[in-house]
Amino acid sequence: MPTYRLLVEYDGTKFAGWQVQASGRTVQGVLLATLRELADEPELDVQGAGRTDAGVHALGQVASLRSRRTLDPATLQRELERRLPADLAVLEVRRAAKGFHARHDALARAYRYQIARRRSAFGKRTTWWVREALDLRAMSRGAAAFVGRHDFRALARRVSGDASTIVEVEACEVAPAGDLVMVRLVASHFLWNQVRRMVGALVAIGRGEAAAGAVAGWLSGSTPPPELAAPAAGLFLEAVRYVDEPWELPLLLPIGVPLRTRGAPSPTC
Amino acid sequence: MPTYRLLVEYDGTKFAGWQVQASGRTVQGVLLATLRELADEPELDVQGAGRTDAGVHALGQVASLRSRRTLDPATLQRELERRLPADLAVLEVRRAAKGFHARHDALARAYRYQIARRRSAFGKRTTWWVREALDLRAMSRGAAAFVGRHDFRALARRVSGDASTIVEVEACEVAPAGDLVMVRLVASHFLWNQVRRMVGALVAIGRGEAAAGAVAGWLSGSTPPPELAAPAAGLFLEAVRYVDEPWELPLLLPIGVPLRTRGAPSPTC
Repeated sequence: MPTYRLLVEYDGTKFAGWQVQASGRTVQGVLLATLRELADEPELDVQGAGRTDAGVHALGQVASLRSRRTLDPATLQRELERRLPADLAVLEVRRAAKGFHARHDALARAYRYQIARRRSAFGKRTTWWVREALDLRAMSRGAAAFVGRHDFRALARRVSGDASTIVEVEACEVAPAGDLVMVRLVASHFLWNQVRRMVGALVAIGRGEAAAGAVAGWLSGSTPPPELAAPAAGLFLEAVRYVDEPWELPLLLPIGVPLRTRGAPSPTC
Repeated sequence: MPTYRLLVEYDGTKFAGWQVQASGRTVQGVLLATLRELADEPELDVQGAGRTDAGVHALGQVASLRSRRTLDPATLQRELERRLPADLAVLEVRRAAKGFHARHDALARAYRYQIARRRSAFGKRTTWWVREALDLRAMSRGAAAFVGRHDFRALARRVSGDASTIVEVEACEVAPAGDLVMVRLVASHFLWNQVRRMVGALVAIGRGEAAAGAVAGWLSGSTPPPELAAPAAGLFLEAVRYVDEPWELPLLLPIGVPLRTRGAPSPTC
Protein backbone atom coordinates (compact mmCIF):
# COMPACT_ATOMS: atom_id res chain seq x y z
CA MET A 1 0.00 0.00 0.00
CA PRO A 2 1.47 3.41 -0.90
CA THR A 3 2.91 5.06 2.19
CA TYR A 4 3.80 8.71 2.80
CA ARG A 5 5.69 10.54 5.46
CA LEU A 6 4.37 13.87 6.71
CA LEU A 7 6.24 16.47 8.74
CA VAL A 8 3.62 18.10 10.93
CA GLU A 9 3.65 21.34 12.93
CA TYR A 10 0.91 22.42 15.33
CA ASP A 11 0.07 24.95 17.98
CA GLY A 12 -1.45 22.57 20.50
CA THR A 13 -3.38 25.23 22.43
CA LYS A 14 -6.74 24.41 20.92
CA PHE A 15 -6.25 20.69 20.33
CA ALA A 16 -7.23 17.95 22.75
CA GLY A 17 -3.91 16.31 21.91
CA TRP A 18 -2.73 14.21 18.97
CA GLN A 19 -4.81 11.09 19.24
CA VAL A 20 -8.24 10.83 17.68
CA GLN A 21 -11.07 10.73 20.21
CA ALA A 22 -14.79 10.11 20.16
CA SER A 23 -15.27 13.81 20.87
CA GLY A 24 -12.84 16.69 21.00
CA ARG A 25 -10.72 18.33 18.32
CA THR A 26 -7.49 16.38 17.89
CA VAL A 27 -4.61 16.72 15.45
CA GLN A 28 -4.94 13.16 14.17
CA GLY A 29 -8.70 13.65 13.88
CA VAL A 30 -8.39 16.83 11.79
CA LEU A 31 -5.69 15.27 9.59
CA LEU A 32 -7.74 12.11 9.06
CA ALA A 33 -10.90 13.99 8.16
CA THR A 34 -9.04 16.30 5.78
CA LEU A 35 -7.04 13.52 4.10
CA ARG A 36 -9.99 11.15 3.78
CA GLU A 37 -12.00 13.83 2.07
CA LEU A 38 -9.07 14.89 -0.08
CA ALA A 39 -8.25 11.34 -1.19
CA ASP A 40 -11.92 10.30 -1.21
CA GLU A 41 -10.92 7.23 0.78
CA PRO A 42 -12.68 6.66 4.12
CA GLU A 43 -10.25 3.94 5.29
CA LEU A 44 -7.06 5.92 4.83
CA ASP A 45 -4.89 5.79 7.98
CA VAL A 46 -2.57 8.27 9.72
CA GLN A 47 -0.25 7.42 12.61
CA GLY A 48 1.93 9.88 14.54
CA ALA A 49 5.33 9.31 16.12
CA GLY A 50 4.36 11.00 19.37
CA ARG A 51 0.92 10.95 20.95
CA THR A 52 1.17 14.42 22.43
CA ASP A 53 -1.27 15.50 25.16
CA ALA A 54 -3.79 18.34 25.05
CA GLY A 55 -2.05 21.71 24.76
CA VAL A 56 1.34 20.26 23.76
CA HIS A 57 2.83 21.68 20.54
CA ALA A 58 4.86 20.12 17.74
CA LEU A 59 7.56 21.59 15.55
CA GLY A 60 8.44 18.31 13.88
CA GLN A 61 5.87 15.62 14.53
CA VAL A 62 6.17 12.85 11.97
CA ALA A 63 3.12 11.01 10.67
CA SER A 64 2.80 8.05 8.36
CA LEU A 65 -0.06 8.00 5.91
CA ARG A 66 -1.23 4.81 4.25
CA SER A 67 -3.59 5.11 1.38
CA ARG A 68 -4.92 2.68 -1.23
CA ARG A 69 -4.55 5.31 -3.88
CA THR A 70 -1.25 6.63 -5.12
CA LEU A 71 -1.11 10.34 -4.36
CA ASP A 72 1.25 12.95 -5.68
CA PRO A 73 3.21 14.33 -2.68
CA ALA A 74 3.38 17.90 -4.03
CA THR A 75 -0.35 17.98 -4.78
CA LEU A 76 -1.10 16.48 -1.38
CA GLN A 77 0.96 19.12 0.39
CA ARG A 78 -0.61 21.96 -1.58
CA GLU A 79 -4.12 20.69 -0.92
CA LEU A 80 -3.40 20.23 2.78
CA GLU A 81 -2.01 23.76 2.92
CA ARG A 82 -5.29 25.01 1.50
CA ARG A 83 -7.60 22.94 3.71
CA LEU A 84 -5.96 22.68 7.12
CA PRO A 85 -6.84 25.14 9.90
CA ALA A 86 -4.40 27.92 10.82
CA ASP A 87 -2.97 26.10 13.85
CA LEU A 88 -1.97 22.95 11.93
CA ALA A 89 0.51 22.78 9.07
CA VAL A 90 2.06 19.97 7.05
CA LEU A 91 5.56 21.20 6.23
CA GLU A 92 6.65 18.30 4.05
CA VAL A 93 5.13 15.29 2.30
CA ARG A 94 7.19 12.54 0.74
CA ARG A 95 6.91 8.92 -0.31
CA ALA A 96 8.08 6.48 2.34
CA ALA A 97 9.26 2.90 2.17
CA LYS A 98 6.44 0.33 2.11
CA GLY A 99 5.36 -0.46 5.64
CA PHE A 100 6.81 2.69 7.18
CA HIS A 101 5.10 3.41 10.53
CA ALA A 102 5.88 6.76 12.13
CA ARG A 103 5.54 5.48 15.70
CA HIS A 104 6.91 1.95 15.50
CA ASP A 105 9.88 2.93 13.37
CA ALA A 106 10.93 5.98 15.41
CA LEU A 107 14.34 5.58 17.04
CA ALA A 108 14.21 8.68 19.23
CA ARG A 109 12.12 11.72 20.08
CA ALA A 110 13.35 15.15 21.13
CA TYR A 111 11.22 17.41 23.29
CA ARG A 112 11.83 20.99 24.38
CA TYR A 113 10.31 22.69 27.38
CA GLN A 114 10.21 26.49 27.70
CA ILE A 115 10.29 28.00 31.20
CA ALA A 116 9.84 31.78 31.39
CA ARG A 117 11.60 33.64 34.19
CA ARG A 118 9.74 36.83 33.42
CA ARG A 119 6.20 37.24 32.19
CA SER A 120 5.84 38.10 28.53
CA ALA A 121 2.69 39.33 26.82
CA PHE A 122 3.33 36.65 24.19
CA GLY A 123 4.06 33.76 26.58
CA LYS A 124 0.75 32.30 27.69
CA ARG A 125 0.48 29.67 24.95
CA THR A 126 4.10 28.59 24.81
CA THR A 127 5.82 28.99 28.18
CA TRP A 128 5.50 28.15 31.84
CA TRP A 129 6.08 31.33 33.81
CA VAL A 130 7.96 30.41 37.00
CA ARG A 131 8.05 33.40 39.34
CA GLU A 132 10.58 32.04 41.84
CA ALA A 133 14.35 32.30 41.34
CA LEU A 134 15.81 29.20 39.71
CA ASP A 135 19.22 27.74 40.46
CA LEU A 136 20.26 26.65 36.97
CA ARG A 137 23.40 24.94 38.19
CA ALA A 138 21.38 22.66 40.44
CA MET A 139 18.88 22.03 37.64
CA SER A 140 21.72 21.04 35.29
CA ARG A 141 23.08 18.61 37.88
CA GLY A 142 19.61 17.11 38.31
CA ALA A 143 19.18 16.87 34.54
CA ALA A 144 22.50 15.02 34.17
CA ALA A 145 21.35 12.47 36.75
CA PHE A 146 18.33 11.62 34.56
CA VAL A 147 20.55 10.63 31.62
CA GLY A 148 21.02 6.91 31.04
CA ARG A 149 18.92 3.76 31.27
CA HIS A 150 16.56 3.97 34.24
CA ASP A 151 13.18 2.87 35.49
CA PHE A 152 10.98 5.98 35.22
CA ARG A 153 7.94 4.36 36.82
CA ALA A 154 7.83 6.98 39.60
CA LEU A 155 7.73 9.81 37.03
CA ALA A 156 4.95 8.44 34.84
CA ARG A 157 1.18 8.35 35.13
CA ARG A 158 -1.06 5.28 35.09
CA VAL A 159 1.36 2.85 33.57
CA SER A 160 -0.33 -0.35 32.41
CA GLY A 161 0.75 -3.48 34.21
CA ASP A 162 2.76 -5.21 31.52
CA ALA A 163 4.46 -2.30 29.73
CA SER A 164 8.11 -1.76 30.57
CA THR A 165 8.93 1.47 32.40
CA ILE A 166 12.61 1.33 31.52
CA VAL A 167 13.63 4.29 29.36
CA GLU A 168 17.03 5.16 28.01
CA VAL A 169 17.37 8.95 28.24
CA GLU A 170 20.02 10.09 25.73
CA ALA A 171 20.06 13.74 26.69
CA CYS A 172 18.57 15.97 29.35
CA GLU A 173 19.90 19.50 29.20
CA VAL A 174 19.09 22.78 30.89
CA ALA A 175 20.16 25.95 29.08
CA PRO A 176 19.32 29.64 29.45
CA ALA A 177 18.09 31.45 26.32
CA GLY A 178 17.62 35.11 27.15
CA ASP A 179 15.21 35.21 30.05
CA LEU A 180 13.90 31.73 29.30
CA VAL A 181 15.24 28.44 30.56
CA MET A 182 15.10 25.65 28.02
CA VAL A 183 15.01 21.98 28.91
CA ARG A 184 15.75 19.55 26.09
CA LEU A 185 15.04 15.86 26.46
CA VAL A 186 15.92 13.07 24.06
CA ALA A 187 15.01 9.40 24.47
CA SER A 188 13.90 6.46 22.37
CA HIS A 189 10.43 6.94 23.85
CA PHE A 190 8.79 8.56 26.86
CA LEU A 191 6.18 7.23 29.27
CA TRP A 192 2.89 9.04 29.69
CA ASN A 193 3.49 12.39 31.43
CA GLN A 194 7.19 11.59 31.86
CA VAL A 195 8.52 14.73 30.20
CA ARG A 196 6.25 17.04 32.18
CA ARG A 197 7.04 15.26 35.47
CA MET A 198 10.79 15.43 34.74
CA VAL A 199 10.56 19.16 34.01
CA GLY A 200 8.42 19.64 37.12
CA ALA A 201 11.05 17.82 39.18
CA LEU A 202 13.82 19.98 37.67
CA VAL A 203 11.89 23.14 38.54
CA ALA A 204 11.45 21.85 42.10
CA ILE A 205 15.24 21.41 42.19
CA GLY A 206 15.72 24.89 40.72
CA ARG A 207 13.52 26.42 43.40
CA GLY A 208 15.45 24.59 46.11
CA GLU A 209 12.49 22.41 47.10
CA ALA A 210 14.44 19.28 46.20
CA ALA A 211 18.15 18.49 45.89
CA ALA A 212 19.79 17.53 42.62
CA GLY A 213 21.28 14.59 44.49
CA ALA A 214 17.78 13.22 45.11
CA VAL A 215 17.26 12.17 41.49
CA ALA A 216 19.02 8.82 41.95
CA GLY A 217 16.66 7.95 44.81
CA TRP A 218 13.58 8.82 42.70
CA LEU A 219 14.81 6.52 39.95
CA SER A 220 15.68 3.66 42.29
CA GLY A 221 12.30 3.96 44.00
CA SER A 222 13.69 4.69 47.45
CA THR A 223 12.14 8.20 47.68
CA PRO A 224 9.15 9.69 45.84
CA PRO A 225 9.80 12.50 43.34
CA PRO A 226 7.87 15.81 43.50
CA GLU A 227 4.27 15.46 42.26
CA LEU A 228 4.68 18.59 40.14
CA ALA A 229 3.95 18.24 36.40
CA ALA A 230 4.96 21.14 34.16
CA PRO A 231 1.95 22.60 32.29
CA ALA A 232 1.37 21.50 28.70
CA ALA A 233 1.78 24.98 27.18
CA GLY A 234 5.60 25.02 27.47
CA LEU A 235 6.13 21.64 25.78
CA PHE A 236 7.11 21.04 22.14
CA LEU A 237 7.79 17.81 20.27
CA GLU A 238 10.83 19.00 18.35
CA ALA A 239 11.91 16.15 16.15
CA VAL A 240 11.76 12.40 15.57
CA ARG A 241 14.73 10.32 14.49
CA TYR A 242 14.59 7.37 12.07
CA VAL A 243 17.18 4.88 10.97
CA ASP A 244 17.45 6.19 7.45
CA GLU A 245 18.54 9.72 8.24
CA PRO A 246 20.24 12.05 10.66
CA TRP A 247 18.10 14.62 12.40
CA GLU A 248 18.80 18.24 12.91
CA LEU A 249 17.53 19.67 16.18
CA PRO A 250 16.31 23.26 16.02
CA LEU A 251 18.39 25.91 17.76
CA LEU A 252 17.21 26.57 21.30
CA LEU A 253 15.75 29.96 20.41
CA PRO A 254 12.51 30.96 22.12
CA ILE A 255 9.32 30.08 20.24
CA GLY A 256 6.29 32.28 20.72
CA VAL A 257 8.09 34.91 22.78
CA PRO A 258 10.84 37.41 21.93
CA LEU A 259 14.43 36.63 22.89
CA ARG A 260 15.22 39.15 25.62
CA THR A 261 18.55 39.53 27.26
CA ARG A 262 18.59 43.13 28.45
CA GLY A 263 17.47 43.27 32.03
CA ALA A 264 16.95 39.52 32.13
CA PRO A 265 17.22 37.90 35.55
CA SER A 266 20.82 36.76 35.57
CA PRO A 267 21.09 32.99 35.59
CA THR A 268 22.80 31.53 38.62
CA CYS A 269 24.98 29.33 36.46
CA MET B 1 4.05 65.99 39.22
CA PRO B 2 5.90 62.65 39.68
CA THR B 3 6.46 61.05 36.29
CA TYR B 4 7.33 57.45 35.43
CA ARG B 5 8.47 55.70 32.34
CA LEU B 6 7.02 52.29 31.49
CA LEU B 7 8.37 49.77 29.00
CA VAL B 8 5.30 47.99 27.64
CA GLU B 9 4.93 44.75 25.69
CA TYR B 10 1.68 43.52 24.15
CA ASP B 11 0.24 40.94 21.84
CA GLY B 12 -2.05 43.23 19.87
CA THR B 13 -4.31 40.46 18.53
CA LYS B 14 -7.14 41.12 20.95
CA PHE B 15 -6.68 44.87 21.39
CA ALA B 16 -8.45 47.54 19.36
CA GLY B 17 -5.10 49.34 19.24
CA TRP B 18 -3.25 51.52 21.75
CA GLN B 19 -5.46 54.53 22.08
CA VAL B 20 -8.32 54.63 24.57
CA GLN B 21 -11.75 54.58 22.92
CA ALA B 22 -15.32 55.03 24.04
CA SER B 23 -15.81 51.31 23.48
CA GLY B 24 -13.37 48.54 22.63
CA ARG B 25 -10.51 47.02 24.59
CA THR B 26 -7.38 49.13 24.09
CA VAL B 27 -3.92 48.95 25.63
CA GLN B 28 -4.05 52.50 26.97
CA GLY B 29 -7.54 51.83 28.31
CA VAL B 30 -6.50 48.68 30.19
CA LEU B 31 -3.37 50.40 31.56
CA LEU B 32 -5.33 53.46 32.68
CA ALA B 33 -8.02 51.44 34.41
CA THR B 34 -5.46 49.24 36.16
CA LEU B 35 -3.20 52.12 37.21
CA ARG B 36 -6.06 54.35 38.37
CA GLU B 37 -7.36 51.58 40.57
CA LEU B 38 -3.90 50.70 41.79
CA ALA B 39 -2.97 54.27 42.65
CA ASP B 40 -6.53 55.15 43.72
CA GLU B 41 -6.29 58.23 41.53
CA PRO B 42 -8.93 58.69 38.84
CA GLU B 43 -7.08 61.52 37.05
CA LEU B 44 -3.81 59.69 36.56
CA ASP B 45 -2.61 59.90 32.94
CA VAL B 46 -0.75 57.51 30.59
CA GLN B 47 0.61 58.46 27.16
CA GLY B 48 2.26 56.08 24.70
CA ALA B 49 5.05 56.82 22.23
CA GLY B 50 3.28 55.04 19.38
CA ARG B 51 -0.47 54.94 18.83
CA THR B 52 -0.47 51.46 17.32
CA ASP B 53 -3.52 50.26 15.38
CA ALA B 54 -5.77 47.30 16.17
CA GLY B 55 -3.85 44.02 15.94
CA VAL B 56 -0.40 45.62 15.96
CA HIS B 57 2.01 44.32 18.60
CA ALA B 58 4.65 45.99 20.74
CA LEU B 59 7.95 44.67 22.06
CA GLY B 60 9.11 48.00 23.46
CA GLN B 61 6.31 50.55 23.55
CA VAL B 62 7.19 53.35 25.96
CA ALA B 63 4.55 55.05 28.06
CA SER B 64 4.76 58.01 30.38
CA LEU B 65 2.71 57.94 33.55
CA ARG B 66 1.89 61.09 35.48
CA SER B 67 0.46 60.69 38.91
CA ARG B 68 -0.20 63.08 41.80
CA ARG B 69 1.04 60.49 44.22
CA THR B 70 4.62 59.34 44.44
CA LEU B 71 4.71 55.63 43.68
CA ASP B 72 7.49 53.15 44.26
CA PRO B 73 8.59 51.84 40.82
CA ALA B 74 9.30 48.30 42.05
CA THR B 75 5.94 48.05 43.82
CA LEU B 76 4.19 49.48 40.78
CA GLN B 77 5.78 46.93 38.49
CA ARG B 78 4.98 44.02 40.79
CA GLU B 79 1.37 45.12 41.17
CA LEU B 80 0.98 45.59 37.41
CA GLU B 81 2.44 42.12 36.87
CA ARG B 82 -0.23 40.76 39.17
CA ARG B 83 -3.16 42.68 37.69
CA LEU B 84 -2.58 42.99 33.95
CA PRO B 85 -4.09 40.46 31.52
CA ALA B 86 -1.87 37.79 29.93
CA ASP B 87 -1.46 39.67 26.64
CA LEU B 88 -0.12 42.87 28.23
CA ALA B 89 3.08 43.19 30.27
CA VAL B 90 4.99 46.08 31.79
CA LEU B 91 8.63 45.02 31.59
CA GLU B 92 10.17 47.98 33.38
CA VAL B 93 9.05 50.94 35.50
CA ARG B 94 11.34 53.80 36.43
CA ARG B 95 11.20 57.41 37.54
CA ALA B 96 11.46 59.87 34.67
CA ALA B 97 12.45 63.51 34.54
CA LYS B 98 9.64 65.92 35.39
CA GLY B 99 7.57 66.66 32.33
CA PHE B 100 8.68 63.54 30.41
CA HIS B 101 6.13 62.74 27.71
CA ALA B 102 6.57 59.41 25.91
CA ARG B 103 5.18 60.65 22.59
CA HIS B 104 6.38 64.25 22.42
CA ASP B 105 9.88 63.42 23.62
CA ALA B 106 10.46 60.41 21.35
CA LEU B 107 13.25 60.97 18.81
CA ALA B 108 12.64 57.85 16.74
CA ARG B 109 10.54 54.71 16.50
CA ALA B 110 11.59 51.33 15.11
CA TYR B 111 9.04 48.95 13.63
CA ARG B 112 9.51 45.42 12.39
CA TYR B 113 7.28 43.61 9.93
CA GLN B 114 7.28 39.80 9.62
CA ILE B 115 6.44 38.28 6.24
CA ALA B 116 6.13 34.47 6.17
CA ARG B 117 7.12 32.69 2.98
CA ARG B 118 5.73 29.41 4.21
CA ARG B 119 2.68 28.84 6.38
CA SER B 120 3.42 28.01 10.00
CA ALA B 121 0.93 26.64 12.51
CA PHE B 122 2.17 29.37 14.87
CA GLY B 123 2.05 32.26 12.42
CA LYS B 124 -1.51 33.55 12.28
CA ARG B 125 -1.12 36.18 15.01
CA THR B 126 2.34 37.44 14.11
CA THR B 127 3.05 37.09 10.40
CA TRP B 128 1.67 37.87 6.97
CA TRP B 129 1.83 34.73 4.91
CA VAL B 130 2.69 35.69 1.32
CA ARG B 131 2.27 32.69 -0.97
CA GLU B 132 3.93 34.16 -4.06
CA ALA B 133 7.68 34.07 -4.66
CA LEU B 134 9.39 37.26 -3.48
CA ASP B 135 12.37 38.87 -5.15
CA LEU B 136 14.29 40.04 -2.09
CA ARG B 137 16.87 41.88 -4.14
CA ALA B 138 14.20 44.05 -5.73
CA MET B 139 12.57 44.58 -2.31
CA SER B 140 15.91 45.73 -0.88
CA ARG B 141 16.36 48.20 -3.71
CA GLY B 142 12.85 49.53 -3.15
CA ALA B 143 13.48 49.79 0.59
CA ALA B 144 16.67 51.79 0.02
CA ALA B 145 14.71 54.26 -2.11
CA PHE B 146 12.41 55.00 0.86
CA VAL B 147 15.33 56.12 3.05
CA GLY B 148 15.73 59.86 3.48
CA ARG B 149 13.50 62.89 3.88
CA HIS B 150 10.43 62.55 1.68
CA ASP B 151 6.78 63.48 1.47
CA PHE B 152 4.91 60.27 2.32
CA ARG B 153 1.45 61.73 1.64
CA ALA B 154 0.69 59.08 -1.00
CA LEU B 155 1.47 56.26 1.47
CA ALA B 156 -0.63 57.53 4.37
CA ARG B 157 -4.33 57.40 5.17
CA ARG B 158 -6.63 60.37 5.82
CA VAL B 159 -3.99 62.92 6.62
CA SER B 160 -5.45 66.02 8.24
CA GLY B 161 -5.07 69.19 6.23
CA ASP B 162 -2.48 71.05 8.25
CA ALA B 163 -0.20 68.25 9.50
CA SER B 164 3.08 67.88 7.64
CA THR B 165 3.51 64.69 5.65
CA ILE B 166 7.28 65.02 5.43
CA VAL B 167 9.01 62.13 7.21
CA GLU B 168 12.70 61.44 7.54
CA VAL B 169 13.15 57.66 7.21
CA GLU B 170 16.44 56.67 8.85
CA ALA B 171 16.38 53.02 7.90
CA CYS B 172 14.32 50.69 5.75
CA GLU B 173 15.81 47.23 5.50
CA VAL B 174 14.71 43.91 4.08
CA ALA B 175 16.39 40.81 5.50
CA PRO B 176 15.65 37.09 5.36
CA ALA B 177 15.46 35.24 8.70
CA GLY B 178 14.95 31.55 8.01
CA ASP B 179 11.83 31.33 5.90
CA LEU B 180 10.63 34.74 7.03
CA VAL B 181 11.39 38.08 5.46
CA MET B 182 11.84 40.88 7.95
CA VAL B 183 11.33 44.53 7.14
CA ARG B 184 12.71 47.02 9.65
CA LEU B 185 11.75 50.67 9.52
CA VAL B 186 13.14 53.52 11.59
CA ALA B 187 11.96 57.12 11.48
CA SER B 188 11.34 60.02 13.82
CA HIS B 189 7.62 59.36 13.38
CA PHE B 190 5.29 57.66 10.94
CA LEU B 191 2.05 58.84 9.37
CA TRP B 192 -1.14 56.86 9.90
CA ASN B 193 -0.89 53.52 8.05
CA GLN B 194 2.49 54.51 6.57
CA VAL B 195 4.39 51.45 7.79
CA ARG B 196 1.76 49.04 6.50
CA ARG B 197 1.51 50.80 3.15
CA MET B 198 5.30 50.83 2.79
CA VAL B 199 5.47 47.09 3.53
CA GLY B 200 2.57 46.47 1.13
CA ALA B 201 4.43 48.40 -1.57
CA LEU B 202 7.60 46.40 -0.90
CA VAL B 203 5.67 43.13 -1.21
CA ALA B 204 4.18 44.37 -4.50
CA ILE B 205 7.77 44.98 -5.66
CA GLY B 206 8.82 41.55 -4.40
CA ARG B 207 6.02 39.90 -6.38
CA GLY B 208 7.01 41.78 -9.49
CA GLU B 209 3.80 43.83 -9.60
CA ALA B 210 5.77 47.05 -9.27
CA ALA B 211 9.36 48.03 -10.00
CA ALA B 212 11.82 49.09 -7.32
CA GLY B 213 12.58 52.06 -9.52
CA ALA B 214 8.97 53.26 -9.13
CA VAL B 215 9.46 54.33 -5.50
CA ALA B 216 10.84 57.75 -6.43
CA GLY B 217 7.74 58.47 -8.50
CA TRP B 218 5.42 57.48 -5.61
CA LEU B 219 7.26 59.86 -3.30
CA SER B 220 7.30 62.75 -5.77
CA GLY B 221 3.60 62.25 -6.46
CA SER B 222 4.01 61.58 -10.17
CA THR B 223 2.62 58.00 -9.99
CA PRO B 224 0.32 56.40 -7.39
CA PRO B 225 1.80 53.63 -5.19
CA PRO B 226 0.05 50.23 -4.82
CA GLU B 227 -3.05 50.42 -2.60
CA LEU B 228 -1.92 47.32 -0.70
CA ALA B 229 -1.57 47.67 3.10
CA ALA B 230 0.16 44.85 4.95
CA PRO B 231 -2.12 43.26 7.59
CA ALA B 232 -1.71 44.36 11.21
CA ALA B 233 -0.72 40.91 12.52
CA GLY B 234 2.85 41.06 11.17
CA LEU B 235 3.68 44.46 12.65
CA PHE B 236 5.62 45.15 15.87
CA LEU B 237 6.65 48.43 17.49
CA GLU B 238 10.16 47.37 18.48
CA ALA B 239 11.69 50.30 20.30
CA VAL B 240 11.51 54.03 20.91
CA ARG B 241 14.58 56.27 21.13
CA TYR B 242 14.98 59.23 23.50
CA VAL B 243 17.64 61.84 23.82
CA ASP B 244 18.99 60.60 27.12
CA GLU B 245 19.96 57.12 26.03
CA PRO B 246 21.02 54.85 23.20
CA TRP B 247 18.60 52.14 22.14
CA GLU B 248 19.32 48.55 21.41
CA LEU B 249 17.23 47.05 18.65
CA PRO B 250 16.27 43.41 19.12
CA LEU B 251 17.91 40.84 16.85
CA LEU B 252 15.79 40.10 13.78
CA LEU B 253 14.81 36.67 15.03
CA PRO B 254 11.26 35.51 14.30
CA ILE B 255 8.70 36.25 17.01
CA GLY B 256 5.78 33.90 17.39
CA VAL B 257 7.03 31.33 14.89
CA PRO B 258 10.03 28.97 14.92
CA LEU B 259 13.17 29.92 12.98
CA ARG B 260 13.25 27.41 10.12
CA THR B 261 16.00 27.17 7.63
CA ARG B 262 15.87 23.57 6.41
CA GLY B 263 13.82 23.37 3.27
CA ALA B 264 13.09 27.09 3.35
CA PRO B 265 12.31 28.69 0.01
CA SER B 266 15.69 30.00 -1.04
CA PRO B 267 15.77 33.79 -1.12
CA THR B 268 16.49 35.26 -4.50
CA CYS B 269 19.11 37.57 -3.04
